Amino acid sequence: MVHITRKVEFCASHRYYIDDISKEENFRLFGKCSYEHGHGHNYSLEVTVKGKVDPKTGMVINLTELDQILKTKVADVLDHKYINLDVPYFREKVPTTENLVIFIWDAIADSFHDSSLHRVRLTENPYLYAEYYGESCSE
Amino acid sequence: MVHITRKVEFCASHRYYIDDISKEENFRLFGKCSYEHGHGHNYSLEVTVKGKVDPKTGMVINLTELDQILKTKVADVLDHKYINLDVPYFREKVPTTENLVIFIWDAIADSFHDSSLHRVRLTENPYLYAEYYGESCSE
Amino acid sequence: MVHITRKVEFCASHRYYIDDISKEENFRLFGKCSYEHGHGHNYSLEVTVKGKVDPKTGMVINLTELDQILKTKVADVLDHKYINLDVPYFREKVPTTENLVIFIWDAIADSFHDSSLHRVRLTENPYLYAEYYGESCSE
Amino acid sequence: MVHITRKVEFCASHRYYIDDISKEENFRLFGKCSYEHGHGHNYSLEVTVKGKVDPKTGMVINLTELDQILKTKVADVLDHKYINLDVPYFREKVPTTENLVIFIWDAIADSFHDSSLHRVRLTENPYLYAEYYGESCSE
Amino acid sequence: MVHITRKVEFCASHRYYIDDISKEENFRLFGKCSYEHGHGHNYSLEVTVKGKVDPKTGMVINLTELDQILKTKVADVLDHKYINLDVPYFREKVPTTENLVIFIWDAIADSFHDSSLHRVRLTENPYLYAEYYGESCSE
Amino acid sequence: MVHITRKVEFCASHRYYIDDISKEENFRLFGKCSYEHGHGHNYSLEVTVKGKVDPKTGMVINLTELDQILKTKVADVLDHKYINLDVPYFREKVPTTENLVIFIWDAIADSFHDSSLHRVRLTENPYLYAEYYGESCSE
Repeated sequence: MVHITRKVEFCASHRYYIDDISKEENFRLFGKCSYEHGHGHNYSLEVTVKGKVDPKTGMVINLTELDQILKTKVADVLDHKYINLDVPYFREKVPTTENLVIFIWDAIADSFHDSSLHRVRLTENPYLYAEYYGESCSE
Repeated sequence: MVHITRKVEFCASHRYYIDDISKEENFRLFGKCSYEHGHGHNYSLEVTVKGKVDPKTGMVINLTELDQILKTKVADVLDHKYINLDVPYFREKVPTTENLVIFIWDAIADSFHDSSLHRVRLTENPYLYAEYYGESCSE
Repeated sequence: MVHITRKVEFCASHRYYIDDISKEENFRLFGKCSYEHGHGHNYSLEVTVKGKVDPKTGMVINLTELDQILKTKVADVLDHKYINLDVPYFREKVPTTENLVIFIWDAIADSFHDSSLHRVRLTENPYLYAEYYGESCSE
Repeated sequence: MVHITRKVEFCASHRYYIDDISKEENFRLFGKCSYEHGHGHNYSLEVTVKGKVDPKTGMVINLTELDQILKTKVADVLDHKYINLDVPYFREKVPTTENLVIFIWDAIADSFHDSSLHRVRLTENPYLYAEYYGESCSE
Repeated sequence: MVHITRKVEFCASHRYYIDDISKEENFRLFGKCSYEHGHGHNYSLEVTVKGKVDPKTGMVINLTELDQILKTKVADVLDHKYINLDVPYFREKVPTTENLVIFIWDAIADSFHDSSLHRVRLTENPYLYAEYYGESCSE
Repeated sequence: MVHITRKVEFCASHRYYIDDISKEENFRLFGKCSYEHGHGHNYSLEVTVKGKVDPKTGMVINLTELDQILKTKVADVLDHKYINLDVPYFREKVPTTENLVIFIWDAIADSFHDSSLHRVRLTENPYLYAEYYGESCSE
């Protein structure tokens, strides 16, 4: 069993704001992240897949296949987007790094066959990242 | 004469769009950067100041003073902002990395006394940065 | 269950030296780290907290709260310090990266309520880091 | 129980090619990695060792000893080499990152006494790394 | 006048060897870089272009155009190649970082019209890079 | 004319303190850097040498020779040292990054023959670096 991790980058903007509390309460909760027009990040996404190494190809998963999954299921959805407005899932949810790793996990977890998704790690800025191992993982 | 460089980071969102050409022409010119609701970056700003080293303190400029300039003149203006809407200067100008380094230079160049501003470098993402040495520099 | 990791940096100096063996034995054991007046590092600390994502805020822990813990319990104690002399805990213990991660874990582990501390990782230089998952973790 | 990780770098070249399928099939499978004369990388290897912290030295393993293991068992074998031709193990196996972490694990796992090898992570380029926890680990 | 820098990466292998001196003399001159089958690197190329900022687009050069130049003139020629064998220019020249920056400058310098090439910087590994400002630059 | 840059790292500790002003004035001037027992950094030094490329070897300077200069003149003097106490030059001078680049320039500038020293850049932490081009350079 080997783990292989692919890193892809995308840039997007977002805003942290809860509609049913006041502007002041939002600022207390989220600070500058609550500013009216949002702000953005260079996100760095690391997707870890685990599986047996194919004795012929030496691979857990073909990187071309993995790149295609990450492009269609993640980058096409999030890259160069304002997440709050452009991604329906985040119309009702605050687009925190925590919620984003769950969203990305759910978007790609079913795409793996001989291997399986192990971890989604999303780095929002050099000082913050979130990781998700799936719902069944109680670690 | 020694050069001292301070790096500060801010995150912001922007959009590349020219009002008097069509959406399609904007896409041809700017690609995904023309998307309607903008996107964002973790910007990394390097400001280089040059001057003589004070024989007593060993410094070209006191970093506390430099940090204060960068906070009030740059970070407070750009951090966690949607540049197109939140910064009046960019209501009429496309907020490219090129235009941003000129904007930042003009915002801080007059703040130095015993030393002088040498270069403003702004890194928008790991693959792109712009540098400006001021108007009088024809290098 | 999502893991969220915050990175903070501090700079400090230290020396590896055991009093009851000779200077030569210390050098054999610790090399240059045994030099008389110590040396220092830019430490990078990654603290990982795990917990459920609050359905309203989208967060495992409010980053303002986490930053406050890391400031008062870690940075105020270690930043810009000579660890051997300035931190009583290390008067009797060699301030290796291994001992530092245990010290930092013990300093902050009780500070979490709805979430819990998962891992402390301390990077001393680009080629060395230690990790600690707490006493009860036999992994 | 503390984990300590040492990072070492080596540069090497390799080629992905399976002899009993055609050049076209190799290109479909491996893309540019199948080019005739190979290509190379700056590999970055992180070796994680776990164990109890020696109460006297404050160390899980003496870094001089660990560095010696990594030098003789890994760097001397792989650094500045064309892996396919210079390392007998890879005459019959495709030198993918997955196969390399298994090779490195097997080369060093027996070298630890008071501590034990926990993980081998090999980063081939900034966007790809593989990890191996040993054969007995089914995680 | 603003400078804009684009970074692109490619991986390649090479060998330092002069045919008309002995193997031993080559080793004395080039060390491990003289090994028979070569080795490789993840090269990182930074190309700096200078020019006036177009008042309409806010750009010195359209990045799509710059990317196209770097793809056809540099990446297609060097990426995933064994430079000594695959690039005719280096059949007679040692493919050092110094010679590579001159080669890359000469390959792209004529491609710029409203802007001009200012600097080619090539990073071979984290500890070594070469820069070239063109033949006419005596700085 | 090509510029070649070598990066080397060393770790050291230092303290900013002027003897003939009070402790309070030192704190006002230098902040935490004035703390009694000092603190430290992982310094990263980039030394840039310029010269003609030798048509036979393809090099501006042999890296083995450059590494030897940097080892004997810089690393042996500064690595794992408390600069204020261990380096006589800094008994009377505050060991700021500015003063360190001048010290390093003066230590190595005479060591080059067919090439010449162009720039010394010293990075103290990820947010601060100083550069020196020599006394005769008024740029």
